[in-house]
Amino acid sequence: MKALEVLHDILAWDVNKECCLLMLMNMKHVMNSQLSFLGCANTCMLLASSPVFRRQQFLIRSLGGGIHHHTHSANMQDLRSVEADAESIIQAITPALDPSRHKGQAGKIAVIGGCREYTGAPYFAAISALKIGADLSHVFCTKDAAPVIKSYSPELIVHPVLEESYSVREEDRKVISSKVLAEVDKWMERFDCLVIGPGLGRDPFLLDCVSEIMRHARQSNIPIVIDGDGLFLITDNLDLVSGYALAVLTPNVNEYKRLVQKVLSSEVNDVGASQQLLSLAKKIGNVTILKKGKSDLISDGDTVKSVSIYGSPRRCGGQGDILSGSVAVFLSWARQHISAADSNSNLSCKNPAVLGCIAGSAMMRKAASLAFSNKKRSTVTGDIIGCLGKSLEDICPANS
Amino acid sequence: MKALEVLHDILAWDVNKECCLLMLMNMKHVMNSQLSFLGCANTCMLLASSPVFRRQQFLIRSLGGGIHHHTHSANMQDLRSVEADAESIIQAITPALDPSRHKGQAGKIAVIGGCREYTGAPYFAAISALKIGADLSHVFCTKDAAPVIKSYSPELIVHPVLEESYSVREEDRKVISSKVLAEVDKWMERFDCLVIGPGLGRDPFLLDCVSEIMRHARQSNIPIVIDGDGLFLITDNLDLVSGYALAVLTPNVNEYKRLVQKVLSSEVNDVGASQQLLSLAKKIGNVTILKKGKSDLISDGDTVKSVSIYGSPRRCGGQGDILSGSVAVFLSWARQHISAADSNSNLSCKNPAVLGCIAGSAMMRKAASLAFSNKKRSTVTGDIIGCLGKSLEDICPANS
Repeated sequence: MKALEVLHDILAWDVNKECCLLMLMNMKHVMNSQLSFLGCANTCMLLASSPVFRRQQFLIRSLGGGIHHHTHSANMQDLRSVEADAESIIQAITPALDPSRHKGQAGKIAVIGGCREYTGAPYFAAISALKIGADLSHVFCTKDAAPVIKSYSPELIVHPVLEESYSVREEDRKVISSKVLAEVDKWMERFDCLVIGPGLGRDPFLLDCVSEIMRHARQSNIPIVIDGDGLFLITDNLDLVSGYALAVLTPNVNEYKRLVQKVLSSEVNDVGASQQLLSLAKKIGNVTILKKGKSDLISDGDTVKSVSIYGSPRRCGGQGDILSGSVAVFLSWARQHISAADSNSNLSCKNPAVLGCIAGSAMMRKAASLAFSNKKRSTVTGDIIGCLGKSLEDICPANS
Repeated sequence: MKALEVLHDILAWDVNKECCLLMLMNMKHVMNSQLSFLGCANTCMLLASSPVFRRQQFLIRSLGGGIHHHTHSANMQDLRSVEADAESIIQAITPALDPSRHKGQAGKIAVIGGCREYTGAPYFAAISALKIGADLSHVFCTKDAAPVIKSYSPELIVHPVLEESYSVREEDRKVISSKVLAEVDKWMERFDCLVIGPGLGRDPFLLDCVSEIMRHARQSNIPIVIDGDGLFLITDNLDLVSGYALAVLTPNVNEYKRLVQKVLSSEVNDVGASQQLLSLAKKIGNVTILKKGKSDLISDGDTVKSVSIYGSPRRCGGQGDILSGSVAVFLSWARQHISAADSNSNLSCKNPAVLGCIAGSAMMRKAASLAFSNKKRSTVTGDIIGCLGKSLEDICPANS
């Protein structure tokens, strides 16, 4: 008990420290903005090596394991999320820009979504991936949606391969289904991550095809970020993701509510939010869940992290799509980083899905904040996408 | 033998000089960046007239022939590429802007590419040609792709004439094939250069039609720049380009590998890269090959030049399309320049295909560098296209 109390105190103390850190980060941000005019990109390094910052990092690391034990041995209601050091994570996992690298090495992402009704969402997700720094971004959508999504931007590669019930006769379903799957399979092995759901719609035939795509992705060990109608699909078919450590779910309030009801047979509990999220992620076999909210909460069933960087009070539709595209890129980078890094990598968390969520959440929030400071109430999703590059540059300056 | 040793020494000395030149160029670049704020675009000219710079240029010119002899008479492994003086070449071949000239005289380019799957690539190639300074830019693509490519820009003339297998019945193939060819032939004689391949896809029927288009272009002595799926086509049908001096191939790492395997029955050799490229170009009957890489290497089977101007570490898809469109314009200009210039033209190289490649490569790199300095990791192909005009203006200011 004594040990637990000490841990509790450290935790409380750490929350205060977090405030200091946030202030420090803000200061750093302002200084960086100003100093970038003087061509001095090393300010980060100076601040990062300050004793306060290092002590803070030590505490976060120490608590990484501490929290875990605490969860299992003490009162469940006591679990709190630890604010993630998102900037350090982004700096660690973002690959160096090296002129000797070739096309594709910084990431190849595919978005599965876009139907007769929705075309904006898959575009937002796919273009966000490019703006974060992926080399290639594909969209697999229905035939109707393709020309429109293509017309939004020549930067995307758009495949008009999905089909909805209204254009498929009952007796042709089997043939067309396997044709769709074959079209996607041709490309599957090349992708570093799939984003399933933005603008997918809920057509039963289309969702059946997408279920198969998910099964194939899983067989090939390709990470999957699931949002929007993709969450509708998996909530009723949990086997599609259950036990797949490379699956990320990014539910909003309503999608989260349905998941909790379905999986935990209970209602959403705001007081013990961290504990409930942890239980949910564990119950689905340690998938990673990014619960969107005032603070984003992230859990893989082992640990709970939060990202509370101030974003924007605008709630225009489409921001979730930016997030899913961003998480996909960072997840791929984290995976590369972890498989390449020697044992000295000082990231306390080794789950690329969790790292990808933390980085994507922080990036989205920074960009939203920047866009809002320019456009205020008239901020729309495209404005936020336009700020992704600057936000990443502020945290992780390109090395040339 | 004595003469060869002297040549060798000059070559070694020249490599050191190259380093100095690169440093000088970097210095110049930095000064340019700063001075551009002061509206002073003439710094280039000042530096270009410095004695060191002029001596360097003299040496490069002198070595133009020397290297060639060296290749054939001495150890093949010793061949090194000579860094091309790209800026002088661009200045020499870019036509003067003369109010008495009329529409079309600065170049009419056609891109053959764009199918159901790909629409961005042909757009990037065609719009780049216009942004470099061509007067007219056409795209010949499939019926599906045309409305999308048209929607990217009203500046392009887009012909929906190509057909893919899925929309052609077996028994109609012959009729449709000759119809496609007739449609392209109507325009053929007007073009100064074709770009074949961006977003072409690999449909067998479509590629058969394109093979015929290439044969007709060749009969009409129209230069052809071949990239992407066009390279896939010619690698299996080398007769299409073999011995055609106005053919340019622009392979990336993977496309080059396939070419080397097919033509030289060997693997890519990084140490003797210049020699292998020279052999490859010679073996395909002195076509010009632009091997894309950290430095671009260019050979027509007689000489090897390199372009190492610093570009960008971003490897977003679509940059190859900018290059192919740019090479097409510069090749046309070089051809005009050579046929118009009196014997006093001080360009050591007289092959318009090589000159076009050097100019296109340098322009692409400068634009990429400029775009990257603005957009960093979020740089996409459209950003680079937006910098083509400024890059050309920096090297070769419009005279009005």
